[in-house]
Amino acid sequence: MREFNEKTLTDAVIARLEGTPDPRLKEVMTSLIRHLHAFVRETKPTPQEWFAGIQFLTETGRMCDDKRQEFILTSDTLGVSMLVDFLNYGKHPGATESTVLGPFFVQGAKEIPIGGTIARAGTPGKPALVLGSVKDVQGRPLAGATVDVWQSGSDGFYDVQKTDGENLRGTLKADGKGEFWFRTVVPQYYPIPTDGPVGRMLKDTGRHPMRPGHLHFMLRAPGYRDLVTHLFTSGDPYLDSDVVFGVKESLVVEWEKVESKEEAARYRLEAPFWRVRYDFVLVREK
Amino acid sequence: MREFNEKTLTDAVIARLEGTPDPRLKEVMTSLIRHLHAFVRETKPTPQEWFAGIQFLTETGRMCDDKRQEFILTSDTLGVSMLVDFLNYGKHPGATESTVLGPFFVQGAKEIPIGGTIARAGTPGKPALVLGSVKDVQGRPLAGATVDVWQSGSDGFYDVQKTDGENLRGTLKADGKGEFWFRTVVPQYYPIPTDGPVGRMLKDTGRHPMRPGHLHFMLRAPGYRDLVTHLFTSGDPYLDSDVVFGVKESLVVEWEKVESKEEAARYRLEAPFWRVRYDFVLVREK
Repeated sequence: MREFNEKTLTDAVIARLEGTPDPRLKEVMTSLIRHLHAFVRETKPTPQEWFAGIQFLTETGRMCDDKRQEFILTSDTLGVSMLVDFLNYGKHPGATESTVLGPFFVQGAKEIPIGGTIARAGTPGKPALVLGSVKDVQGRPLAGATVDVWQSGSDGFYDVQKTDGENLRGTLKADGKGEFWFRTVVPQYYPIPTDGPVGRMLKDTGRHPMRPGHLHFMLRAPGYRDLVTHLFTSGDPYLDSDVVFGVKESLVVEWEKVESKEEAARYRLEAPFWRVRYDFVLVREK
Repeated sequence: MREFNEKTLTDAVIARLEGTPDPRLKEVMTSLIRHLHAFVRETKPTPQEWFAGIQFLTETGRMCDDKRQEFILTSDTLGVSMLVDFLNYGKHPGATESTVLGPFFVQGAKEIPIGGTIARAGTPGKPALVLGSVKDVQGRPLAGATVDVWQSGSDGFYDVQKTDGENLRGTLKADGKGEFWFRTVVPQYYPIPTDGPVGRMLKDTGRHPMRPGHLHFMLRAPGYRDLVTHLFTSGDPYLDSDVVFGVKESLVVEWEKVESKEEAARYRLEAPFWRVRYDFVLVREK
């Protein structure tokens, strides 16, 4: 077909997918073209507006490197990442809820022993103790489960946003009873990076860029679904307006202030310190 | 609101746009979020598929520079650019139809006089003569109208895709009667650049990357709407399957082979040469 109009174009574009060998790719592309065209038909962008969109995408892509992922940030701030999370994980009775991965996970963070610290000496912040376990929905411990943890510092930055090396992230293994503990500092609320197109989009739509304080976790055990989640700090002023829509009530935890010097000594900390405990529950792989 | 689910999330994201000062931005963002979420709900991407999408966008952005615009290519090959064209220009009785700008227009191409050539000496290809006029819908000549023209060479590349300098593009002014002519070579069909994510997308969906041979035109006159269009070569094997859906029947022209040495001499060409004539009609600015 040689000539199209506003109405026939969408079907003509979709017809070109006829020869797609992978049925899933064909399905996704067909849906993408329909929804993208529907968005364009509804908003009727001028050529200048269309080009502003091209420029936004271009700038977003050009901002990405091995330490910055502005498209994940776009997906997060438009609620797409959480939607993908809901559609994939849903709720499993008795299992820990998931939330966004975010753009700051790093493969191959340093391994620490149980009881080790992920905070380099001199890292500012309230000294913290995190105690946890990894179990299945029947309450059976998942011995040796892998626990990845990462967080921003009290300055609001992740290590990968700065130049002074790895900090506040690590990977450890749960013990034979599925238990683990490590030392760190209490996480603080912080703004997502605002020096790129996403920051401008937030500003232009009157949105703040803040996330409530949280610890990131990724938990893995053979035969179980990977769990990507956070523990959010109770009382944080941004719990109700997380810029990436990641908060779930079941993931909000209370940091308990501990004054006891004996307790502190037991965990190789100074009093006072702040303590939290969480029992993570994984579901079997389908 | 602290906790969302698959159903309530979209409205919660849109509610965050409440404080957007610019009503048009609010309208576009609301529509974008609705359609983007609808696409995600319909296709239910796995985290791996979602990340493949993030990677496609990232790679597309990182491929862009001042000479390569992979997002325009994405928009073109998904039919979005032509949809924007239809929605903005529609059909005006008696006026020349528009088509895509494409990614190869360059601001400030060299100026040539009427009768000049846009092909550097030694440019391979069939010698060509392009005669044209610029008028309004009442048939009144638009004296001094600006005519920008650009095209690929017989090797299928635009100058900006190569490193040997400006060629096969130029800007000239119509005379007092709205008439102009210039010399060049006959355009050939060619593939859009396939060494990036768009090329991979075409391959994975079983599509060819070809565009039928065409000359690009941008015509401008004060008080009239800019006209961005092409002249397509009649008989081209890709007229019915242009990878960017740009062909309109009214823009297909016949190149006439001229054997006369006298005619050739009149236009400072060698016989045989190929001739085309087109009368461009612009509409008044609203």
